[in-house]
Amino acid sequence: MISGMTSSMVAPINMGKQLLGNWCSAKKRIVEINSPCNSTCYNTNRRFSLLVSACSHCSPVGGNTRKGLKDVPLINGRARKLGNESTEDFATFLRGRFVEDRFVYRQNFFVRSYETGPDKTISMETLTNFLQETALNHVRSCGLNENSFGTTYEMDLRKLIWVVTRMQVQVQRYSKWGDEIEVETWIDVGGKNGTRRDWIIRDRYTKEIIAKATSKWAIMNRETRRLSKMHEEVRQELAPFYFNRFAIAAEEIDHQKIQKLTDSTVEGFRFGVIPGWYDMDVNQHVNNAKYTRWISESVPRKMLEDYTMTSMTLEFRRECTQSDILESMTSASSKVIGASNNKYVSKKPHLQYIHLLRLQDNKTELVRARTEWHLKLNHN
Amino acid sequence: MISGMTSSMVAPINMGKQLLGNWCSAKKRIVEINSPCNSTCYNTNRRFSLLVSACSHCSPVGGNTRKGLKDVPLINGRARKLGNESTEDFATFLRGRFVEDRFVYRQNFFVRSYETGPDKTISMETLTNFLQETALNHVRSCGLNENSFGTTYEMDLRKLIWVVTRMQVQVQRYSKWGDEIEVETWIDVGGKNGTRRDWIIRDRYTKEIIAKATSKWAIMNRETRRLSKMHEEVRQELAPFYFNRFAIAAEEIDHQKIQKLTDSTVEGFRFGVIPGWYDMDVNQHVNNAKYTRWISESVPRKMLEDYTMTSMTLEFRRECTQSDILESMTSASSKVIGASNNKYVSKKPHLQYIHLLRLQDNKTELVRARTEWHLKLNHN
Repeated sequence: MISGMTSSMVAPINMGKQLLGNWCSAKKRIVEINSPCNSTCYNTNRRFSLLVSACSHCSPVGGNTRKGLKDVPLINGRARKLGNESTEDFATFLRGRFVEDRFVYRQNFFVRSYETGPDKTISMETLTNFLQETALNHVRSCGLNENSFGTTYEMDLRKLIWVVTRMQVQVQRYSKWGDEIEVETWIDVGGKNGTRRDWIIRDRYTKEIIAKATSKWAIMNRETRRLSKMHEEVRQELAPFYFNRFAIAAEEIDHQKIQKLTDSTVEGFRFGVIPGWYDMDVNQHVNNAKYTRWISESVPRKMLEDYTMTSMTLEFRRECTQSDILESMTSASSKVIGASNNKYVSKKPHLQYIHLLRLQDNKTELVRARTEWHLKLNHN
Repeated sequence: MISGMTSSMVAPINMGKQLLGNWCSAKKRIVEINSPCNSTCYNTNRRFSLLVSACSHCSPVGGNTRKGLKDVPLINGRARKLGNESTEDFATFLRGRFVEDRFVYRQNFFVRSYETGPDKTISMETLTNFLQETALNHVRSCGLNENSFGTTYEMDLRKLIWVVTRMQVQVQRYSKWGDEIEVETWIDVGGKNGTRRDWIIRDRYTKEIIAKATSKWAIMNRETRRLSKMHEEVRQELAPFYFNRFAIAAEEIDHQKIQKLTDSTVEGFRFGVIPGWYDMDVNQHVNNAKYTRWISESVPRKMLEDYTMTSMTLEFRRECTQSDILESMTSASSKVIGASNNKYVSKKPHLQYIHLLRLQDNKTELVRARTEWHLKLNHN
């Protein structure tokens, strides 16, 4: 744990270099990212597909099934044999199931009307909700803890919970009411005391990748609210599910520290942001989708009307409690037309913003964020 | 339209008496509520079931199908023949379908993790989201306007949209993450210029009714924001779908005007409630689920921890726009143990509250609400 932290602090853990260092040396399955399958479903024209679009032909264990389970759902630990998708039962389809030899968990969503906004599309908050839902069902379905909210048995024994420390989301397009999407997620080792979790979001029918995300997670004691080491027993529970695949290509991962936003540069400001009772989860913890909403509250309304957020990186610095009152602040970082490292969307971003959520009373930082924006299509 | 209203006002329309007056005289199908089917699926032990639990044996048109369509989904106007539920396609299952000779629309939901709060259950906001989603899919599937957000073709031609003027929800229990529920909805005539929409929410497997709701809707011009009469062409579009069934028994419908909450009696207060960009829908309109959230923000936190809201009545008085800043106020109406008219939940409510959402600057009322609360089970 980083020295100098108070008992309630959650520090970001920069695991980027460690991850790269572990690339080839980790004692686990390695995806041969430079030797992709030659199947037609492998799209060599898309740079990011190199890392994420593995298909059944390029199984991480060379096509062999592990434990004899392949495409078999384990909902709450109970295995059930499936036919093809059209005859799966609804619960399996919606709660998710393992694919690719149980390394990847896939869940389908139908976008609901109330999840869309005035321009008929979902928000980044809704997108991160989908990510959370899939992650939780993944952990629950691993058979590690049927009744958990993302924790394993060994974590429960030690009163430990997960906290996300950094998250990056790239969006090609936002879905609309009635769209059907599928979200895939997996975990991998993430430094000495954490994990990395990635996601790919696709159109269910065309399989077009519409968003992708990566995140870093640490372990916290739910009573002391202090970060904890990852006990060996927990590591052993998780290790069989580790999968060395990256949703976002290494050169596109945003490792850069987010610049501190100061009062002198602020352009958008919202004070008195108070977490509601229903913003808390069962761990008395605000989930990261709520932060996304609060960040957007200080973005100038005109921006939200004319631009689409195509990328977001969050640095979580301290957890938020029910009694906190927050300030949300936004500042245009720079005009970055022609100077972006976001290769995901087809065009370079038109604007880049930085954001800060902090406590209103003592100005302690909770979350820093960096976002990229593109003009909406009807403004082009 | 009620005289003296400003251009932006939305007045409540009290249609209760008119509805009762129309009970037997309307030129439409009448459910023989006093002559229910004798099938075993009709539960005579439940008072409210008399009105809402009609089954396929007690079809409102005597068992005959209308237009040859029975249990055939019309998603976006396209009919598709179904087998039994286990072989339906996922889209039909989740977007909904007509049942009971196309008078009732049924949609299924899986409760997602992020829709639940710290006590692991969904909130009233989530419940009303489910109601909205089902209502919108119902209208869309009627074949009246495939691309609408709840409006018919004739309404679109006249730039008209729906606004809810009153809503009452009764909750037996709140669902948890992973629960599967089915929501049924239908519309009926609602006075001279409106409609009534009701809902029943059931556990998908046990068919236990876990919530029910009724609402009154008026029509508003989306440009002038004034209430409009219901044109004959619109009435003719809707009339084939009118269904004289009540989700909430007549004697349980809350027609009582909600007492005005004054500053002198306020117990919970939240100022500076600002609608976010994503609180708006495509009509630049805040949907009613958002009001539910804002109301809860002034309820004392201890109340939310110890009590469950089992009933809510909303009176909508004026629409909320993006530029408004609101105040949320709550006051305990009275201790009503032993003196409630809520016969739905098994026990009488322990507390009754009234609420007010108003503009911060000129104190114009937006929404009045009355809620009933029961001690949570672990507090009994």
